[in-house]
Amino acid sequence: MVKQSVTCRWKCVVAYDGTTFHGWQSQEGSNTIQDYIEAQLAKVTGKKIRIEGSGRTDSGVHALAQVFHFDAEWTHGAEKLRVALQTGLPRTIRLKSLRRARADFHARFDAKGKVYRYEIFLGEPDPFIAPFCWSFRRELDWKAIERAARVLRGRKDFWAFSGENDRTYETTVRDLRRLDVVRRGRKVSFTFEADGFLYKMVRSLTGALVNVGLGKLTAAEIASLLKTRRRIATVVTAPPQGLFLVKVIY
Amino acid sequence: MVKQSVTCRWKCVVAYDGTTFHGWQSQEGSNTIQDYIEAQLAKVTGKKIRIEGSGRTDSGVHALAQVFHFDAEWTHGAEKLRVALQTGLPRTIRLKSLRRARADFHARFDAKGKVYRYEIFLGEPDPFIAPFCWSFRRELDWKAIERAARVLRGRKDFWAFSGENDRTYETTVRDLRRLDVVRRGRKVSFTFEADGFLYKMVRSLTGALVNVGLGKLTAAEIASLLKTRRRIATVVTAPPQGLFLVKVIY
Repeated sequence: MVKQSVTCRWKCVVAYDGTTFHGWQSQEGSNTIQDYIEAQLAKVTGKKIRIEGSGRTDSGVHALAQVFHFDAEWTHGAEKLRVALQTGLPRTIRLKSLRRARADFHARFDAKGKVYRYEIFLGEPDPFIAPFCWSFRRELDWKAIERAARVLRGRKDFWAFSGENDRTYETTVRDLRRLDVVRRGRKVSFTFEADGFLYKMVRSLTGALVNVGLGKLTAAEIASLLKTRRRIATVVTAPPQGLFLVKVIY
Repeated sequence: MVKQSVTCRWKCVVAYDGTTFHGWQSQEGSNTIQDYIEAQLAKVTGKKIRIEGSGRTDSGVHALAQVFHFDAEWTHGAEKLRVALQTGLPRTIRLKSLRRARADFHARFDAKGKVYRYEIFLGEPDPFIAPFCWSFRRELDWKAIERAARVLRGRKDFWAFSGENDRTYETTVRDLRRLDVVRRGRKVSFTFEADGFLYKMVRSLTGALVNVGLGKLTAAEIASLLKTRRRIATVVTAPPQGLFLVKVIY
C-alpha cells in the first residue's frame, strides 16, 4: 500500500501593521512579512515552504486583507494550522483566515482586482493615528480634487503614475473602477479599486490628488499626463504609512 | 534695575500611546511618560523642572488628552516651547497644546472631573486595533449590561470597584455622571464621566460590566456591592490597553 500524499494548497488572508517591516516580499537579510510567515511555516511543518502573495506591498505599507497561498502537508484541519502559524508571529501580523484551496488556486494570477485605501489626516494626528496616515496642516480644494478624480476614473494608461522600478509590464493600462474621496472632519480617505495596480500607483495618484488640492496641479494637466505618459515632479509619491491593501478580489 | 523674573505657569495637554510606557508617573529607573517629558524640559530649559499631571495613568493605559502643569522661564512664546519640547519626545507622546496658565492653576487639584473610555472588540482584532482594546470572542447580554449601568450611575460609594493600592481616600464616594455603552458592529465602548475616579475604578467597572454581560454577575449583585463595599472575584480588572483618558474637565 502506498501512503497517499496529503499535500494540499492553502489560501490565507493576513492583516499586518507594516510600520516595522521592510515590506511584504522576501529579501536577503531583511525583515519582511513573507520572511516571518515562511519561518513560522518551516517551524510548524518542518519543511521550507515558499508562500506566494497576491503582490508586494512596500516597506511601511499596511494590509487589512493581503492574500497568499502555499502547499503543505497537514492533517489536523485548517483552524489548527492557522493557530499554529499565528503562534510565534509578531503581534503586528495576524492570520485572519486559512482555508484549503483548489490545487490550482494562485494568489497572484487569479486576482481579478484589488482595493487600496489611502488615509490622510489634516492636522497633527494623535499618536494612535500617526503611524497610519499621511498628515499635514494644509487645507485642500475638494472641488478640484473631485474634478481630477473624474479624469482618473476608468480604463486609462497610468504609466505617468507609476514609480520607477525593475518590473516590465505587458501593458500599463489599468481599469480604475473606483476612486472615492471621503472626508470625515479632519480625516480623509481615498479608496481605489482596479483590476490591477502599477508599482507605486496608489501613492502616486494620492500624491497627485493632494497636489491638485493644493493648487499645484490641475485636472487638465492630469488628463494630459494620462495621454503623454510623462511623469512630472508634481506627481509626488505619498508616504507609505497612509496606504492599506484593503482587499484582493478573486 | 532688577531683572524681572519671567517664570510662569504652563498648562499642557498631551496624548500618548501607553503601550510601551510604565504609566504616567515618574518611577525610579522606569520609562514613564512623565520621565520623558521632564527629561525634554531639562534639555530645553537647562533646568530640572517637575511636572504635575492631573493624575496617574497605569502602565499600558493611553491618553487622548492628559493635562499637566509646570513652572518655567521662557520668553519665546508658547508654540515655540511646545515644539521645542515635542522635538526629542518619542512619537508615541504628542503635546497637543501648551498655554500659559494662571499662576495658581493646578492640573490635579483644579480638575472638576474626568472622562475615560474603555474599548472592547468582540472577536480577533486587526493588528491596528489590538493594542488599543480588550478583545474576546464571547457574545454579551446587552440588556443585562444596561441594567447594571443604571445601577452604577450617580453618586455612589465605589470602594468595591477600586483596586488595592497604597492610596488613602478621604472618601470613596464618587459621582458617576455618565456611563454610556455604545456598540458599533464588533466594537464596543464604555464611556465614564465622574468628578473623580478611584484607583483602577474604570477597569474594575468595565470588568464587572463584562462579567454581567457574560452572566457571571447581576445588576442586583452590583447594587449590593455598592452598599456592602466588599470586592468580589467577579469584579475583575479589565486589561490596561483598552483604556483611554479622554478628557480632564476644569
